[in-house]
Amino acid sequence: MEKNETDRETGNLLQPKYDSNGLITAVVTDDSTGELLMLAHMNAQALQLTQESGVAHFYSRSRQCLWKKGETSGHILSVTELRIDCDQDALWVKAMPAGPACHTGEPSCFYRKIVDGKLEPVG
Amino acid sequence: MEKNETDRETGNLLQPKYDSNGLITAVVTDDSTGELLMLAHMNAQALQLTQESGVAHFYSRSRQCLWKKGETSGHILSVTELRIDCDQDALWVKAMPAGPACHTGEPSCFYRKIVDGKLEPVG
Repeated sequence: MEKNETDRETGNLLQPKYDSNGLITAVVTDDSTGELLMLAHMNAQALQLTQESGVAHFYSRSRQCLWKKGETSGHILSVTELRIDCDQDALWVKAMPAGPACHTGEPSCFYRKIVDGKLEPVG
Repeated sequence: MEKNETDRETGNLLQPKYDSNGLITAVVTDDSTGELLMLAHMNAQALQLTQESGVAHFYSRSRQCLWKKGETSGHILSVTELRIDCDQDALWVKAMPAGPACHTGEPSCFYRKIVDGKLEPVG
């Protein structure tokens, strides 16, 4: 492995590995229940704003703009911890949600399980 | 929203939305601790094998091949539940890991938290 990669995996320097669109995947879990809430993407600005404000910001790939989660709905995500993975191409955002995280009104975007190749609502 | 999209969000039909490379993001958590273990990608074949075998299979973007997690290390992921998100472009794999999920030997790939712009080991 190149030195750069070793540093990235073992060092204490934040060096997010953005993809060709300047984005990194962010996984959001509910810090009180541990449930997976949603998956989204951040660009460098969204990550910086998230760190500064303590409230999750993302980059919307469909709308191609910075996006403060909950800006219109009020369902913001208050960040309790932010982690990065081994090769620094994914973020784990632990958060306290102020309301449903999914635009459908479900608490989590993952409201269906796959059973025998079909989808079934959970809980 | 188009009818197709509504069906995808509310229906019981599994219709994974693969990206331009034929991949869907998969988030793996430890079903006993709730910890986020790793992020990986599946193609249609990996998803099918995962469903059929009950053991997580992925598609390695770096090696460009199907990848049974733990094939060489023995650290397989036994799948306890498989979920898909609202727009069916992300999977949640709940699993029981047979060993460290990260290639570094850490139980989870997310072994560092971001504090004041620097990385700190957790736990």
